[in-house]
Amino acid sequence: MINFIRRSFVLFFGNMSKTRICIVGSGNWGSAIAKIVGANATKFSDKFEEKVTMYVFEEMVNGKKLTEIINETHENVKYLPGHKLPPNIVAVPDVVEAAKEADILIFVVPHQFIPGLCATLLGKIKPSAVGLSLIKGFAQGDGTNIKLISKIIEEKLKIPCSVLMGANLANEVAEEHFCETTIGCKDKRMGPIMKDCMQTPNFRVTVVEDTEAVEVCGALKNIVACAAGFVDGLALGDNTKAAVIRLGLMEMVRYVDQFHGGSKINTFFESCGVADLITTCYGGRNRKVSEAFVKTGKSIEELEKEMLNGQKLQGPATAEEVNGMLKGCNSTDKFPLFTAVHRICAKELKPQDLIDQIRNHPEHAARQ
Amino acid sequence: MINFIRRSFVLFFGNMSKTRICIVGSGNWGSAIAKIVGANATKFSDKFEEKVTMYVFEEMVNGKKLTEIINETHENVKYLPGHKLPPNIVAVPDVVEAAKEADILIFVVPHQFIPGLCATLLGKIKPSAVGLSLIKGFAQGDGTNIKLISKIIEEKLKIPCSVLMGANLANEVAEEHFCETTIGCKDKRMGPIMKDCMQTPNFRVTVVEDTEAVEVCGALKNIVACAAGFVDGLALGDNTKAAVIRLGLMEMVRYVDQFHGGSKINTFFESCGVADLITTCYGGRNRKVSEAFVKTGKSIEELEKEMLNGQKLQGPATAEEVNGMLKGCNSTDKFPLFTAVHRICAKELKPQDLIDQIRNHPEHAARQ
Repeated sequence: MINFIRRSFVLFFGNMSKTRICIVGSGNWGSAIAKIVGANATKFSDKFEEKVTMYVFEEMVNGKKLTEIINETHENVKYLPGHKLPPNIVAVPDVVEAAKEADILIFVVPHQFIPGLCATLLGKIKPSAVGLSLIKGFAQGDGTNIKLISKIIEEKLKIPCSVLMGANLANEVAEEHFCETTIGCKDKRMGPIMKDCMQTPNFRVTVVEDTEAVEVCGALKNIVACAAGFVDGLALGDNTKAAVIRLGLMEMVRYVDQFHGGSKINTFFESCGVADLITTCYGGRNRKVSEAFVKTGKSIEELEKEMLNGQKLQGPATAEEVNGMLKGCNSTDKFPLFTAVHRICAKELKPQDLIDQIRNHPEHAARQ
Repeated sequence: MINFIRRSFVLFFGNMSKTRICIVGSGNWGSAIAKIVGANATKFSDKFEEKVTMYVFEEMVNGKKLTEIINETHENVKYLPGHKLPPNIVAVPDVVEAAKEADILIFVVPHQFIPGLCATLLGKIKPSAVGLSLIKGFAQGDGTNIKLISKIIEEKLKIPCSVLMGANLANEVAEEHFCETTIGCKDKRMGPIMKDCMQTPNFRVTVVEDTEAVEVCGALKNIVACAAGFVDGLALGDNTKAAVIRLGLMEMVRYVDQFHGGSKINTFFESCGVADLITTCYGGRNRKVSEAFVKTGKSIEELEKEMLNGQKLQGPATAEEVNGMLKGCNSTDKFPLFTAVHRICAKELKPQDLIDQIRNHPEHAARQ
């Protein structure tokens, strides 16, 4: 409660202390977001401290430290080459140093680094700080219980954590092509501040209170994209693809309803919902690798090596985690599409069996 | 009321008179649907009269009447070549003859033929008959008031009229690829009968009561597809396209809310809503011609001649009708995307101006 009052005081009445922002992460997406946040910290310099720190995992690029390159050339030559970062973005190789004075911590690192980063930061940040996670996907759970990344941050850092998700391919955001995004923030007073921090004429922000729904959409869409890729690989056509995407969307709605009750249906109409799902099911690597899975007969692991340089594909991993959780509460039959995607990726079913698995979908019996 | 009781009696208790179906129309979509309806009339011969009449506008094909070809070869060689119709589909060149005994009249003709057909049929059909319209698009209104085709049928024929819409490209339905569709039917007792008439293992039907929302989606999606085509033509990328489709969807929701109040938001999650919209914005000729409109600088009329053999493109026409209606009630500012599409097609704006028109969309100010 004291933290809450302090937070409110600092953010709303504290003219002497403007809101300070730290971006924890400096990959492709983190750097694209730094362009936006840096510009807004300058634009709204009455509200925000102009200097924005960016935690950069130090590495050597052509014999020089990446932080030095960024601070001298204002370009993340490794992860977002060709784009200038605003000069008020300051790369810092020590995460505690970067974060210690921040009021808003924007997390944008691969999810496996979150527990370690939080452990490092615990007790070293302002007690009044708030988090904003841009990390899509679920954290690896214990097999039957899926943890949201924002919840891990909340638990490990003892701060509230909002989320930002949407149809936001990093390079297109960096190019300043028009797009939308969704912030999920339960705190009605923080919502507008986060919106000011993020919105530009080309990056349009809607704030909703359903943080869980916003975050879950960003993970589950990758399962649906696998199903869409199977349909493409099987050349089943536009009608079937539309049906599969729609049934996937309905399973996303049902999942949120069952495991994160109280979310609003309208949240699925936001950029984090239907828009991000569409983009992922028509573009995106989950769709692409899943199409190749059907056409080549190779395993997901082989294709990850061949097509993704060994990186892990999110859809099959998420499908497996979700399947463990659904099995744990005897709910697989309510999610035939999610279940089929997992079983196909695990080679328990053939891609050709997908349609038989969803033909009598609970959605078709839902009304009348 | 007497008609209502008679209708209920005939449909639910009248074992002596099974439900008779007539398909009014025999184009590509009508013939694809005839495959389904004919098969179901046989499958559920306890409920349906097996013989299904199909009104065929008579024409000569290779020196022979089309009705004769269909009745002898069970193939609509002109509009759905390569697919056998069930033998219980009987082509009839006289619409009164085809329709006079029918309990369900399935309308699937170009919308401009509806007034004439209804005038011909008035007083010649069973008073207890019900209609089911498969016709997408709006009828040409009087400039400020748009009429739904199902309402024209209801008014002109004095029968209730349901609708069927979805992500249903006719050829893919004829190929029996898995897909979904939505029936909008206000009569809770007719809904299941229409579902039995239409559903197959590969054509999955959901019945909802929001007939207006179902029908309106089938028209408005073409406006959104034009916007999606402009984005493709301008090469603005996946994020922008997703944002434009989503904002289009939100204007569809708002339009239904303003002009057909009382519809449920869930209806937009059905096949008639988001699924049909997606398919139309990624495939479909409205998207394609709109992309060419940007790339070639030619007028819509020129492109209709070049790309569609002179056929009229639905999106620009619907955008114009909707614009007239929105102007009539001073609502254009609530529908910036619909309005921009009309003005771009009418060459009042450049395609490049699209994004500026939707940058401050009411949706972005809707919450918090």
